[in-house]
Amino acid sequence: MMKVCELGEFALIDRLAEMAARGHQRRLLVGIGDDAAAWRSDASVQLATIDALVEDVHFTLATTTWEDLGWKSLAANLSDIAAMGGRPEHVLVSLALPGDTEVDDVVAFYRGMIELADEHDTVIVGGDTVSIAGKAVINITVLGSATDSDGRILTRSTAVAGDRVAVTGALGAAAGGGEMLLGGLSFAPEVETELCRAFRRPQPRVAEGQRLVEQGVTTAIDISDGLVADLNHICRASRVGARIEVDRVPVAMAVTAAFGDRATGLALSGGEDYELLFTADANRVGRVRDAVACPVTIIGEITGGLGETAVVDRQGNPVEFSRSGWDHFAAG
Amino acid sequence: MMKVCELGEFALIDRLAEMAARGHQRRLLVGIGDDAAAWRSDASVQLATIDALVEDVHFTLATTTWEDLGWKSLAANLSDIAAMGGRPEHVLVSLALPGDTEVDDVVAFYRGMIELADEHDTVIVGGDTVSIAGKAVINITVLGSATDSDGRILTRSTAVAGDRVAVTGALGAAAGGGEMLLGGLSFAPEVETELCRAFRRPQPRVAEGQRLVEQGVTTAIDISDGLVADLNHICRASRVGARIEVDRVPVAMAVTAAFGDRATGLALSGGEDYELLFTADANRVGRVRDAVACPVTIIGEITGGLGETAVVDRQGNPVEFSRSGWDHFAAG
Repeated sequence: MMKVCELGEFALIDRLAEMAARGHQRRLLVGIGDDAAAWRSDASVQLATIDALVEDVHFTLATTTWEDLGWKSLAANLSDIAAMGGRPEHVLVSLALPGDTEVDDVVAFYRGMIELADEHDTVIVGGDTVSIAGKAVINITVLGSATDSDGRILTRSTAVAGDRVAVTGALGAAAGGGEMLLGGLSFAPEVETELCRAFRRPQPRVAEGQRLVEQGVTTAIDISDGLVADLNHICRASRVGARIEVDRVPVAMAVTAAFGDRATGLALSGGEDYELLFTADANRVGRVRDAVACPVTIIGEITGGLGETAVVDRQGNPVEFSRSGWDHFAAG
Repeated sequence: MMKVCELGEFALIDRLAEMAARGHQRRLLVGIGDDAAAWRSDASVQLATIDALVEDVHFTLATTTWEDLGWKSLAANLSDIAAMGGRPEHVLVSLALPGDTEVDDVVAFYRGMIELADEHDTVIVGGDTVSIAGKAVINITVLGSATDSDGRILTRSTAVAGDRVAVTGALGAAAGGGEMLLGGLSFAPEVETELCRAFRRPQPRVAEGQRLVEQGVTTAIDISDGLVADLNHICRASRVGARIEVDRVPVAMAVTAAFGDRATGLALSGGEDYELLFTADANRVGRVRDAVACPVTIIGEITGGLGETAVVDRQGNPVEFSRSGWDHFAAG
């Protein structure tokens, strides 16, 4: 007999995905194991994603207000739709809360969600709220559709050797913000403001995901577990390797200002930045850069290796980095 | 300040539903507060529902196997789609599990879900599995669509005074099964088998829900909280009252055999039978009876009262009944 914590989250999901998909491959475009599921309906390609957030595993009320928690919980799920290149449309929310939770806190949570949902013309259509004896558990489902008229979407499984690896925006600020808030660290006011914003109010790259599809990109993931961990997800799904050059990774300025030497480690592995990580030939990456408002940086390339990301310095020598992206079960 | 347990689950959901729907009424056919959400897409009416099940609140592993728990968890959600008269199509599953859960148990849970999903040509397309320190929390989202070419669906809010109140099948066996398994009670083998099956492997009335729509019924709910509690949901949403005659309530034979005098109480309030409770004029109820394979029983009528169900005997005198359908927060 094997325990869930021994097998690990990703191996477990692989096994369940295989069970669930059996006999249904024809109908499904993408099943369990990508950012979102995808299937063809009458007129379009539908997308759906669900995420569970457990108090004191995925968030702590020590570093966030209920309103910011509502925003961030929805942002994580909108980001999964962004990583498919889709348009989020409808949201279902399930809250398992201790009975002594303040009603005002739940209302604030919804207010935070609704604020972000409104920015993306997305509607909260369903909800369930139940009592739990222990920690709060938040589950959010986001439904959406492909915006491309041919139903093209972004998946993790289409990277090929020779593709450039590129990333939107800059990395590390969410992880830096989390460390600052948990540790009660102090920095210059503008640095604190930026780290707080990145940690508490991440902006899912919904428009950018749609631009990727328009420019012919097919491979993307959002950075939720950490740059290297998420690039490994692409490698594993595409059966390729990747090499990223550590000096090319765009580190958020506030992280460098606050954490100095540690900034690159946070950018490589911190997670929760919700930037898009994608692969494409150099030509397409250039077109994406012209099409979006945010920075787009090439940080490396897809290689013929199998399933792993090598992080190297300018001379091509492997670099160690400390704070690894996490596997939720193995971490416990 | 008010705690969630003081306000109660249904009042809280009302308040959140109002916040979420503001400004979006035009787009939504049905928002938070019915069995499922409904909205019009390009070609059809889409349905979506989410439910949270918390270990030792909504289920206990003392009375069920993981495989049966998978079946029943999905059945509860398919039943919500049935209560809208729709066809379930896609399922998303989120499991928050203690790290020491056996992998074989998770696989068994999926096996139970897949067995029921296959019976309804429904596919599990997405999943998330995370670690939790306390009790297991299961969240299932089911997506579906209206089968009616005009997009007609069943809601809780269209009952009118004079409608008959009717129910499919017989009631009380799931609650009876739960009491038997929790209490370690013994009955005749065929009674035990039937109570176990009703408790562990309920059959959502998916086909029957579609027949209701075809016969012109517009008001329905599935019996998950209990007959009287669920009829109260219809009364509240439709701003009507209801009267049911206790002697007309169809009690499952195994419950009468096992619990004698207490059987009617279990049928009135036990919950988890996942039969359909609907209202319509007598003519339509008759047509439904001809169209479905299961029994259909008229148990009372919709009245001009406001928001409450009266349970009466043959002489029209009010009847007390003990085991009330629950409000998850107030119960705790």
